[in-house]
Amino acid sequence: MFVTTFERVKFFDTDVMGVVHHANYIRMFETGRVEFLRAIGIDLNEMMSDGILFPIIEVDAKFHAPAHFDDELELRTIALELTRAKMHFRYEIRLRGDEKLLAEGTSTNVFTHDGKICRLPEKFFTRLAEGLK
Amino acid sequence: MFVTTFERVKFFDTDVMGVVHHANYIRMFETGRVEFLRAIGIDLNEMMSDGILFPIIEVDAKFHAPAHFDDELELRTIALELTRAKMHFRYEIRLRGDEKLLAEGTSTNVFTHDGKICRLPEKFFTRLAEGLK
Amino acid sequence: MFVTTFERVKFFDTDVMGVVHHANYIRMFETGRVEFLRAIGIDLNEMMSDGILFPIIEVDAKFHAPAHFDDELELRTIALELTRAKMHFRYEIRLRGDEKLLAEGTSTNVFTHDGKICRLPEKFFTRLAEGLK
Amino acid sequence: MFVTTFERVKFFDTDVMGVVHHANYIRMFETGRVEFLRAIGIDLNEMMSDGILFPIIEVDAKFHAPAHFDDELELRTIALELTRAKMHFRYEIRLRGDEKLLAEGTSTNVFTHDGKICRLPEKFFTRLAEGLK
Repeated sequence: MFVTTFERVKFFDTDVMGVVHHANYIRMFETGRVEFLRAIGIDLNEMMSDGILFPIIEVDAKFHAPAHFDDELELRTIALELTRAKMHFRYEIRLRGDEKLLAEGTSTNVFTHDGKICRLPEKFFTRLAEGLK
Repeated sequence: MFVTTFERVKFFDTDVMGVVHHANYIRMFETGRVEFLRAIGIDLNEMMSDGILFPIIEVDAKFHAPAHFDDELELRTIALELTRAKMHFRYEIRLRGDEKLLAEGTSTNVFTHDGKICRLPEKFFTRLAEGLK
Repeated sequence: MFVTTFERVKFFDTDVMGVVHHANYIRMFETGRVEFLRAIGIDLNEMMSDGILFPIIEVDAKFHAPAHFDDELELRTIALELTRAKMHFRYEIRLRGDEKLLAEGTSTNVFTHDGKICRLPEKFFTRLAEGLK
Repeated sequence: MFVTTFERVKFFDTDVMGVVHHANYIRMFETGRVEFLRAIGIDLNEMMSDGILFPIIEVDAKFHAPAHFDDELELRTIALELTRAKMHFRYEIRLRGDEKLLAEGTSTNVFTHDGKICRLPEKFFTRLAEGLK
């Protein structure tokens, strides 16, 4: 399963080199991840209310071509692995409706409770498992 | 009393127009404010541990001339009013060692406890009052 | 005339105090401003291609109540003054569909060419003037 | 060779989960990289004046333990590979004076001229080569 989201490049996403600053793609990945989870019924505020956090433990990205101010980006968020122990996603960023890959990456979150690694409770896992269908 | 801090302009502070993005000066003001408070013995983590937050209720800024990547900025943070009810600061940003004002502004914080406006406890106010000397 | 845009609060918009960091409202104002201009046919990339920049010379904001992660914000961008010399906008931020004002502010841009203040060329001003109708 | 820099965690570096937002470590890596280059005599403004840019093509990071507001971080930037074609750095972030690794990562920049991959001119490469000693 994948979820597609769209985002305009803002002035504050760019830098003096005229392109989107690379760290901002890592932020865009997060936006995709949150919308993917929403699409399968996972509300991160509900998870936080239950005392569960989901820290990122690893992220990587490759940048193939630059994006510019006001470009409309299409972000595809793809579930690679969703278990009681972690969420592993892949991201692809293109200009809207274009085939060329501008940036891609992956991220891994674990789940924690009171600062310790935990396994995701049933009620959330049931929904999370939908993301791999 | 005023406190002077220094900060290099980073790539991620700039935008496609080649200059520091205006919203980043608002962030710099905060850096100056935190260092001003540290200089008079106020540790904001200690305040937060006591359940006191200090939301900004007002900020304004004027931008006179641009700053660029790698410029070394000198930020002067000046206390205008420090009471049990609020902190009112003024900020001036120049190139290090230069007289010309690049940006200036003010901010106002109040104090809150459990989400409600409160008056600052004695132990913090005693230190805060030093900032006006 | 005003233009309404919507924006979800992201994790990276919030800070340790659990609410949207105040500097991020200044960024949201910009998003509203760009969309207002798009609505009246002004493409800022076209303006930049013609060598015209539009630096912010003044911004102010008041923060009445906090916004939180995943809140859907409704930003109203209102033209106060649009001339050949400057653009003056007002912004209002609320939860989507809610009446309560969370944050408000104003900004002023001027126009520059080769780093000097200029008057906006006819082709852009004709469109800009629509924004006051 | 490595270069050590220090940085205080700001409110705007943190998020609602109470810790430094992971994308901000990618920004810190850049700060270390710029200071490493300055230490070996490379001024990126000079490089940009000569029409040479240095886009990031790859970045990765692992996050082992969180950093919090006001923590003083120690960033070690280590040159792994510095050639006429690319710069490959490694980063390690710890609390100042502490042994425990909080975050680590690597990045790769290439050099471009007029948007095309280029080989770094002699005058810059001579200095860059110092970074591997």
